[in-house]
Amino acid sequence: MDTVRIIEIKESVFADNDREADRVRQELKGKKTFLLNLMSSPGSGKTTTLMRTIEALKDELAIGVMEADIDSAVDAEKIATTGVRSIQLHTGGMCHLDAGMTEQGLREIGPEDLDLVVLENVGNLVCPAEFDTGAVKNAMILSVPEGHDKPLKYPLIFTVCDALIINKIDVLPYFDFDMDKVVEYAHMRNPKLEIFPICAKTGEGVDKWTDWLKNQVRAWQG
Amino acid sequence: MDTVRIIEIKESVFADNDREADRVRQELKGKKTFLLNLMSSPGSGKTTTLMRTIEALKDELAIGVMEADIDSAVDAEKIATTGVRSIQLHTGGMCHLDAGMTEQGLREIGPEDLDLVVLENVGNLVCPAEFDTGAVKNAMILSVPEGHDKPLKYPLIFTVCDALIINKIDVLPYFDFDMDKVVEYAHMRNPKLEIFPICAKTGEGVDKWTDWLKNQVRAWQG
Repeated sequence: MDTVRIIEIKESVFADNDREADRVRQELKGKKTFLLNLMSSPGSGKTTTLMRTIEALKDELAIGVMEADIDSAVDAEKIATTGVRSIQLHTGGMCHLDAGMTEQGLREIGPEDLDLVVLENVGNLVCPAEFDTGAVKNAMILSVPEGHDKPLKYPLIFTVCDALIINKIDVLPYFDFDMDKVVEYAHMRNPKLEIFPICAKTGEGVDKWTDWLKNQVRAWQG
Repeated sequence: MDTVRIIEIKESVFADNDREADRVRQELKGKKTFLLNLMSSPGSGKTTTLMRTIEALKDELAIGVMEADIDSAVDAEKIATTGVRSIQLHTGGMCHLDAGMTEQGLREIGPEDLDLVVLENVGNLVCPAEFDTGAVKNAMILSVPEGHDKPLKYPLIFTVCDALIINKIDVLPYFDFDMDKVVEYAHMRNPKLEIFPICAKTGEGVDKWTDWLKNQVRAWQG
């Protein structure tokens, strides 16, 4: 098991983030490494979903995880128990990662021998959506307790994501959450969004999500 | 019932936000209007908690609500059903409000005849914590499904708040949420934080929160 390294990342120096993001993607393409940017609100179950994802894919793919957080190393320590390479990025108060910051993390984790690197972005539905990190695909988690109206209130993140994981479906009976409505609202923002209802705690539905992810990685590797 | 007005607020022109915030507070003091800044993650139940709060206090206090959101008027429409004065502030993609933006909202709602104005900030635990809005007190909501580790991961918001509402206690049996730990972690960040466990849906515990708020308003009015 790797020990958890904490990297204090610095504010980016690149004026043109989109260009820098394209450069990061090009480099990853050369290394046949797929970068997934995983976004969500605080407490939607990013780390638990990630642990399930690692469990399902770690025999087939070499995986690394970059946990971004304002403070603490709680998440990276959890991820390290799965045995995959894991580092913690401290953003020093910043609410998102951009391509330059992601690149600092990639330099530390060393993507050369990895098929899949997951960037767990800062818990926030607003700012992370505004910055291309250089990821090949963006995914987000919305958990049942947050409510089905979120695509109406935080439109951009639903627009920029390729996959939407709807987590905590085990508590559907206790919340006024309308699955048909959330699918309708999310597709209003982004008709191509792939939607995966799951329960990360029990593992229900996780296979469809991990199959999709594995296919994306293999397609990228060519 | 007032109809919902939507105000497109502009980025602030003030270089020194703290000074501008103090000016906003001074003006409110002169009008004997108390401004509460309410913050939380998306989906923690800000609007439902606010509706309970209005229900409990509207016979004693003249209340107004400013709903800040990236997009949509979902929340202001709900609040308008309570009969209090309510406006929707659109931040145009911005992830927080500062004092200058709050002032634009105050000009529109007209605080002169109001005892209490509640600013429902953008759903986000990171950015809103960094800007003094000119509010007399800051409160935040953390809901049970978000997890008890949030004070470790989002320290600043717990530091700048005067009150922490822990919402959705009705679903405690279905989540691994440790109430003792969240109190311990939150007080580690801010020993003076007042903590109110509630269920906004059923009304459980709401009276302690509204008593505290009423006392704060009365103290401010002198």
